[in-house]
Amino acid sequence: MTKTSPGNFFEDFRVGQVIKHATPRTLTAGDVALYTALYGPRFAVQSSDVFAHKIGYPRAPIDDLLVFHIVFGKTVPDISLNAVANLGYAGCRFLAPVFPGDTLSAVSEVIGLKENSNRKTGIIFVRSAGFNQHGARVLEYVRWVMVRKGNEAAPAPADHVPRVPTELDPKSLGEACPPIPAHAYDFELAGGPYRFDDYTVGERIDHVDGMTIEEAEHQLATRLYQNTARIHFNQFVEAQGRFGRRLIYGGHVISVARALSFNGLANAFHIAAINGGRHVAPVFAGCTVFAWSQVVAKAELPGRDDVGGLRLRTVATKDQPCTDFPLQAGGADDPAVILDLDYWVLIPR
Amino acid sequence: MTKTSPGNFFEDFRVGQVIKHATPRTLTAGDVALYTALYGPRFAVQSSDVFAHKIGYPRAPIDDLLVFHIVFGKTVPDISLNAVANLGYAGCRFLAPVFPGDTLSAVSEVIGLKENSNRKTGIIFVRSAGFNQHGARVLEYVRWVMVRKGNEAAPAPADHVPRVPTELDPKSLGEACPPIPAHAYDFELAGGPYRFDDYTVGERIDHVDGMTIEEAEHQLATRLYQNTARIHFNQFVEAQGRFGRRLIYGGHVISVARALSFNGLANAFHIAAINGGRHVAPVFAGCTVFAWSQVVAKAELPGRDDVGGLRLRTVATKDQPCTDFPLQAGGADDPAVILDLDYWVLIPR
Amino acid sequence: MTKTSPGNFFEDFRVGQVIKHATPRTLTAGDVALYTALYGPRFAVQSSDVFAHKIGYPRAPIDDLLVFHIVFGKTVPDISLNAVANLGYAGCRFLAPVFPGDTLSAVSEVIGLKENSNRKTGIIFVRSAGFNQHGARVLEYVRWVMVRKGNEAAPAPADHVPRVPTELDPKSLGEACPPIPAHAYDFELAGGPYRFDDYTVGERIDHVDGMTIEEAEHQLATRLYQNTARIHFNQFVEAQGRFGRRLIYGGHVISVARALSFNGLANAFHIAAINGGRHVAPVFAGCTVFAWSQVVAKAELPGRDDVGGLRLRTVATKDQPCTDFPLQAGGADDPAVILDLDYWVLIPR
Repeated sequence: MTKTSPGNFFEDFRVGQVIKHATPRTLTAGDVALYTALYGPRFAVQSSDVFAHKIGYPRAPIDDLLVFHIVFGKTVPDISLNAVANLGYAGCRFLAPVFPGDTLSAVSEVIGLKENSNRKTGIIFVRSAGFNQHGARVLEYVRWVMVRKGNEAAPAPADHVPRVPTELDPKSLGEACPPIPAHAYDFELAGGPYRFDDYTVGERIDHVDGMTIEEAEHQLATRLYQNTARIHFNQFVEAQGRFGRRLIYGGHVISVARALSFNGLANAFHIAAINGGRHVAPVFAGCTVFAWSQVVAKAELPGRDDVGGLRLRTVATKDQPCTDFPLQAGGADDPAVILDLDYWVLIPR
Repeated sequence: MTKTSPGNFFEDFRVGQVIKHATPRTLTAGDVALYTALYGPRFAVQSSDVFAHKIGYPRAPIDDLLVFHIVFGKTVPDISLNAVANLGYAGCRFLAPVFPGDTLSAVSEVIGLKENSNRKTGIIFVRSAGFNQHGARVLEYVRWVMVRKGNEAAPAPADHVPRVPTELDPKSLGEACPPIPAHAYDFELAGGPYRFDDYTVGERIDHVDGMTIEEAEHQLATRLYQNTARIHFNQFVEAQGRFGRRLIYGGHVISVARALSFNGLANAFHIAAINGGRHVAPVFAGCTVFAWSQVVAKAELPGRDDVGGLRLRTVATKDQPCTDFPLQAGGADDPAVILDLDYWVLIPR
Repeated sequence: MTKTSPGNFFEDFRVGQVIKHATPRTLTAGDVALYTALYGPRFAVQSSDVFAHKIGYPRAPIDDLLVFHIVFGKTVPDISLNAVANLGYAGCRFLAPVFPGDTLSAVSEVIGLKENSNRKTGIIFVRSAGFNQHGARVLEYVRWVMVRKGNEAAPAPADHVPRVPTELDPKSLGEACPPIPAHAYDFELAGGPYRFDDYTVGERIDHVDGMTIEEAEHQLATRLYQNTARIHFNQFVEAQGRFGRRLIYGGHVISVARALSFNGLANAFHIAAINGGRHVAPVFAGCTVFAWSQVVAKAELPGRDDVGGLRLRTVATKDQPCTDFPLQAGGADDPAVILDLDYWVLIPR
């Protein structure tokens, strides 16, 4: 019998099953520096201990998406090693700030299962959460994935399709953001004058710049996250596959788009929640990523006059500038669109 | 109205204007490790806390050029986003050592303006400085850049061309270097026997080795510096541009040349000042960089018998070894030359 | 006279000579993060301060191979800058754990010399060791290299061929591993259920996954190790050389294979010793590395019931999955094989 883990197949999951994922991870200033080198983010809160301290953090918190990638990476060997397709995620909330020195681990609960009619695959729904070394929940999200059956003849559990939240109530946001003292946030140093009241619902922002992704970059990123999805690393196998090339981790594209969004959203320093997202088309090395955003909604947070929430739709494209806000073409997705992300950011009032 | 920053155009600047640049940055051991991975520097002072402590630093200081790149990067969004050409820099002095944990910010003052006769562009002169979290000035330099006008019909301010220093007085050097106790500096551990007295004015040193630059490398570096100059990152746009390719940040080439210069200048551990430099030709991924140096002058520093100053001219080439010290060819720049840097280093006596 | 170091030639060495290598190096969390990004290792002990602390380390130790690469890198400028071929290494023991903040330096003793009959080259044998800032020996190994003569007419010292250990006595293993309290090691969090007793001598494990190596990746790695071997960095020269391409540092391949070996050896968290290894064929960027391992021997360690030793043979291939455990073909090395490593790992009992 081999000691190699083949990953879990559809028939291996049970509703209610709790999976404690492997490889706890201490995040450090080294991870932060790599994240900066990989994406070039410029949000002052995550870049400067001094700036962060002034607004109420003990020091600069780790970028929300880096936390997401680390937690997500841990779930891959157990949840999606045999995935056919990543179908969606939702209800993602950032619940506590993470700092260098914190150690993260991840746990998932299987909350739904549905075999496909072809009996070869099924959809599994999990609620995953990341915890720090004190046991505090720092992040949670729901994800659903289409996974192969290992044995097509294996009996499948009864269908159980959970209710998946389509959006997060803004009342639930902000737990990871300390109260910011009045006048503590320096807009000049943060790189932009615009605050909560300056944004209007429906407003669209072209983030202008484009960033070309190299093979070495997305591989470094995805390994940093200890994400073991094979399609990102193995050119020998992928050369014979559907695309002929390694596929870039979808989270890498989100991080590129988030970094580009600084130009126009410089003060939207914290991702409080991700309502959902679609990886509309695959992305490969050599692509240049552009992005634009629309303010979909605004929300005051209960009891807080320091920050407000902007619900953003950020759309990323490959090899097409976003001057014209590409989204749909002829009733379908614009072929340049690669990402359509729906999330809440916090921004000073 | 868009919230995207278009950067400043020539007519937006005024002499005497002070610009507080965005995105303060806490430098960490992570940045140091990335700098090592990007260039492979081997100067013992920056590599070892123990070595640095023995010669009077509290711990290993951050490489001078990493400090320069970080401060320079902050100025780009305000000063040179609409640059047509980087014309020069001068009067660059390193004034205090920077350590992991320090937070740097940058301020520039506009010290000169001169519209070009075509009325489409103008030259701006700025004096930029980097500060640590205690408000201490760690670095300053003068830079002049040709910038586009946003509106060619806009009236230009009166010409004001400042005096730019062509060289720094060696009497002004050494503020960032602590006094080194006698016999504290271990030449064997530092990797070379040569000290101040061993170098002679006019002496030339071929640094022998060559280093090939990859796209991922210069992109990682330039993002680490939070430098937003578009020409380094956007292959989609550059494919249609003058070179058809992304251009490598000039500072990346300086750092490669400096790392190569260890072979022959192992004890020249500190860049005290940069008198000026020319980026003679553009550099692209795939180029192999070589370098040689000439000792242009030597200077004792007032009141110091621990270190002396060597004024170096370091010339870097692409795809040509420096055995014959390439510089000029047929009265013009040798076509292989990419960098001609004039700077002062400190070296133990 | 040039100040550039030409490296040592065969006739420059003497038996008994002790070389204190240059550039001491403080290892940090930044180096650890880069190592993670370069290889994606998932061993819990090195990944999590909390996990490591529970089993008796003060915090997460630095990956054994990163320690090896750092020490090895220091020896290159003195020992193998003029190498024609790396012939072998043996007797490599890890003697003390290394942690972020520790400063490593390296010393080599020449223990053997043998001129080749062509009088143009000779073999040198060195015993190298790495030390931390307290003077404790953290690593030692024997290596032999074929080095060019600088002057073919130079008289060679008398032949002296030392006895090189072919394997390490398992009784000598484990000094770098603290005693692990009973029940402190969490197998679920570590990512695999298998412990010492679950492995049988002769057992083979296909590590399944493959990893494609990019030029930027191996260059970043090798510079991080301050390894100056020219063949890894200089495409201009190598384009005209034997392979037409830059050669990947053999240690990079070892680290890739080690990271892949997690799949099947998740609890083999510590490399206690390397008996020897062969870099069977050169590896270039674009290659996809696969690996498999065989348990060659098992050993209890004197006085320890917490961990046992597995002697592993790990074989890496390029562009060939290891389903069939490739090793030999037609009486010679299988042409896909690039690495054949013989080493001892510790694993909980």
